[in-house]
Amino acid sequence: MSLHGSNVARCRQLIAKSRAPARCFSVTRSNGTGKERVVILGSGWAGYGFARTLDPAKYERVIISPRSYFVFTPLLASTSVGTLEFRTILEPVRRLPGKVGFLQGWADDIDFERKTISVEANAAEDAASTTVVPAPSPPPSETSRPESLGTPFKAPKGDLVNIPYDKLVIACGAYSQTFGIEGVREHAHFLRDIGDARRIRLRVLSLFEQCAYPRGLDHLSDDDKRQLLHFAIVGGGPTGIEFAAELHDLIHDDLAPIYPELAPLVSITVYDVAPKVLPMFDQALAKYAMDTFARHKINVKTEHHLERLRLAEGEFGRRHGALKIKIKEYGDDEVGAGLVVWSTGLMANPLIAKLAAKQVPLPGANPLSTSPPATRHLLRDARTGGVMTDAYLRARTVISAGEGPNAKPEPDSVLEDVYVIGDCAVMENEPALPKTAQVAAQQAAYLAKTLNRRKAVAGGNSGAAEKPFRFRNWGTLTYLGNWKAIHQSQADELKGWVAWVVWRGAYLTKSMSWRNKLLVPIYWVVSWIFGRGISRF
Amino acid sequence: MSLHGSNVARCRQLIAKSRAPARCFSVTRSNGTGKERVVILGSGWAGYGFARTLDPAKYERVIISPRSYFVFTPLLASTSVGTLEFRTILEPVRRLPGKVGFLQGWADDIDFERKTISVEANAAEDAASTTVVPAPSPPPSETSRPESLGTPFKAPKGDLVNIPYDKLVIACGAYSQTFGIEGVREHAHFLRDIGDARRIRLRVLSLFEQCAYPRGLDHLSDDDKRQLLHFAIVGGGPTGIEFAAELHDLIHDDLAPIYPELAPLVSITVYDVAPKVLPMFDQALAKYAMDTFARHKINVKTEHHLERLRLAEGEFGRRHGALKIKIKEYGDDEVGAGLVVWSTGLMANPLIAKLAAKQVPLPGANPLSTSPPATRHLLRDARTGGVMTDAYLRARTVISAGEGPNAKPEPDSVLEDVYVIGDCAVMENEPALPKTAQVAAQQAAYLAKTLNRRKAVAGGNSGAAEKPFRFRNWGTLTYLGNWKAIHQSQADELKGWVAWVVWRGAYLTKSMSWRNKLLVPIYWVVSWIFGRGISRF
Repeated sequence: MSLHGSNVARCRQLIAKSRAPARCFSVTRSNGTGKERVVILGSGWAGYGFARTLDPAKYERVIISPRSYFVFTPLLASTSVGTLEFRTILEPVRRLPGKVGFLQGWADDIDFERKTISVEANAAEDAASTTVVPAPSPPPSETSRPESLGTPFKAPKGDLVNIPYDKLVIACGAYSQTFGIEGVREHAHFLRDIGDARRIRLRVLSLFEQCAYPRGLDHLSDDDKRQLLHFAIVGGGPTGIEFAAELHDLIHDDLAPIYPELAPLVSITVYDVAPKVLPMFDQALAKYAMDTFARHKINVKTEHHLERLRLAEGEFGRRHGALKIKIKEYGDDEVGAGLVVWSTGLMANPLIAKLAAKQVPLPGANPLSTSPPATRHLLRDARTGGVMTDAYLRARTVISAGEGPNAKPEPDSVLEDVYVIGDCAVMENEPALPKTAQVAAQQAAYLAKTLNRRKAVAGGNSGAAEKPFRFRNWGTLTYLGNWKAIHQSQADELKGWVAWVVWRGAYLTKSMSWRNKLLVPIYWVVSWIFGRGISRF
Repeated sequence: MSLHGSNVARCRQLIAKSRAPARCFSVTRSNGTGKERVVILGSGWAGYGFARTLDPAKYERVIISPRSYFVFTPLLASTSVGTLEFRTILEPVRRLPGKVGFLQGWADDIDFERKTISVEANAAEDAASTTVVPAPSPPPSETSRPESLGTPFKAPKGDLVNIPYDKLVIACGAYSQTFGIEGVREHAHFLRDIGDARRIRLRVLSLFEQCAYPRGLDHLSDDDKRQLLHFAIVGGGPTGIEFAAELHDLIHDDLAPIYPELAPLVSITVYDVAPKVLPMFDQALAKYAMDTFARHKINVKTEHHLERLRLAEGEFGRRHGALKIKIKEYGDDEVGAGLVVWSTGLMANPLIAKLAAKQVPLPGANPLSTSPPATRHLLRDARTGGVMTDAYLRARTVISAGEGPNAKPEPDSVLEDVYVIGDCAVMENEPALPKTAQVAAQQAAYLAKTLNRRKAVAGGNSGAAEKPFRFRNWGTLTYLGNWKAIHQSQADELKGWVAWVVWRGAYLTKSMSWRNKLLVPIYWVVSWIFGRGISRF
């Protein structure tokens, strides 16, 4: 805690002119209350889950996130097809029980020495609710040597605010990985935020409506319509498979009856580069899934490599947004599609690269040494670009000898009061944990409970005496459409409608407010009786 | 019906190359089924209401509208503050019971001689769900002489499709009237479509979030915040008053508890040019409304004339969207606001001017006459620019002698098979009917029932033997916030919570699907227990 004490004066100076608003969270360091300020970057499964569990009586909680709500992602695909209403899977950060500070914006930089975060505040009404994919940049270098800062991901345009912290929880998640494939950033749809779900929903309904035009002066041929009504999903993991299943249900149950002439022209295809989809399920369950998809006439194309995505030529592309997919295995024959949903992998948040490039002085460095003053920086995982943490989710550091390339690992060293959880963390003891909601939620709960147990005073111990984090696999559920799902855990395997009941039941009990616990089943019943919402809005 | 028979051949020729898709509605004239095709322009209270009541066993229904849904407008203000979910007040046109044809797009032109409508189809996902205000044009001339076509309101960009009709129902509504006041089109918010409600909601929530930034490098002063949190409503009719009331409820019940430091800075003002607001209510009820507003600290400024609306200078305007309102009575002192909601009057749809300019040959014109061949055109109301109809809602025409200015009224003449209902109609026998949902709904029901009663064969009588339309005033309801409303009809007057119960109950029984009849009260209860939805999405 030496850094904390020594920097209070400097921080005060830094923020001298910015006195705190009356009852808003203060931008000066907390005092008097005896509470430490825990600043949380991110409002997803990790950040929101942590804030929910951290005791507001012991800590001052401040969430910084570009999104003012938490998205219950397992039901995102259901909102994209209108089974659920968008807001039923959102939890506003400001409705967290207890006092909570919130600042909508992007963490632009962090000064680990001064313990201050520079935030670009942006709460304008057009602030993003859709997935942003950063422009292509070189992949993380093979060594953990910090990269140059390079061009910033986006230029600041909002108010710049400095927020001091006592403890920092980095839970800013990961970005969609496009592998630098041409046209994906521009033309594919992602399915990670609520705005993505809305865009997909509008696109699907709009495609049916466009194909229903009577033949006019400049009409679409049946082949054109077949291309526009081809829905391509890239990535055969649970997200891609569930979206394909939900889309099938929407088309089969709700759209086919009102567009009967279009139903024979519709097709859904899941592409994956791997030899099989749903790799986390055992052979029998994966086969059951594929048999179900085959009955629903959803095509699954494994070992297919997408090489390019582009708009079709002329009016067909410009006016109707028709896409052309180039697939390695098909040579020059491009596949037409009206919608491409991208759900492959994740890549590190560009903020992590920026933070890892920062040199932080070593505490207790030898001033008599003749070598340049030793500094350290965040240790990144070479494969994923995430921040390495120890078994207690504390950010690991590595000695960077001056500006030289001879970065030496510094065993067991951590950055004091900086924790990393969720998709942007890679644990030293369990480096292969998947980037899932389940892992993020368990890490969030572990860390919050650990901090809650401590005496919540400045300078409390840094947690090394606690039990290290252990992931417990609760199993994986995937919805397959038509009231069927598969579930697999270490203890059991379920399939068919039993899995569906478990699937739906399990989701209801987790992480939701009572408001949404009530509204979600109401919408399930209403959609079951009256059909899904198809108002194109 | 001579026009109908004589033009079949020409129409067939015109649309020869466009064969009808299999089960979609045909673009050739219907035949074989013996059903006439009734084409309806618009999907509001008039168009949707008419289509709902017209018997699909007797007529082929085809709706042409830029919107694929009907909006239950009395609850629009409730969705704009999050009490109700947006889709609970939408009814998709394609879910109308019975077979219904739908084409999303703008009627671009109508050939009354050939009985064909030219439609610019546009079902792209970004197709408008927000109010569009046409660019300024000269007010309708004092005589009913047709205006020149002038510049088209918007350039066609979608597919052009020709749709033949047997009967035509023009129900394309009216546009918001801005009186040519500078900046209103660009900077004011309207509240007529569901996209408007969403934009207002995002703006209100965003303003609170922006004002909650802790003080940063470039912070907002308390005076800045006071300006951004000033919500101005222009127009003291029921729409403006109800929005002010709902906004008060949202701020008082839901936002003040989570932004306590901002509550003292909030203000709501209703401006009107008239000496009193709610002119349709009698003195006692209007006073009750004003007393309620005074208790809620909603300012009502009568006899105030808005002269200009503009963005504030610098970052305050550019980044935060702060507005400056110039009011005649205040001289050069502009009033700051974060949101201006415009709900004054309505103006004629530009399509009406275009249609009224079209010359249609008189049936049975004397070929031996030495004067130029006599033509006629739609008769417009001089004051509002709407189409005049007779007591049976048939479009009235007037003789236009060639191109000359000597337009002579032709008593009792109507355009065969063309009906006009809702906001774009002005009835000869009741010219002062207000442009309200109630009038539109009654006209729609009257016309549909009239047509249902007839033998539904081509060439049926034109309805002159029927009972003329009579408006029955069901009374006016206005919500005042805080569970109170006022209701006035010829029979009774209600105020307070009794009126509130009547208000809410009455809305539920009208025009809604069972889905929404169920969801609306569920949301009322959920919002009452858990608060309004405040997820900014």
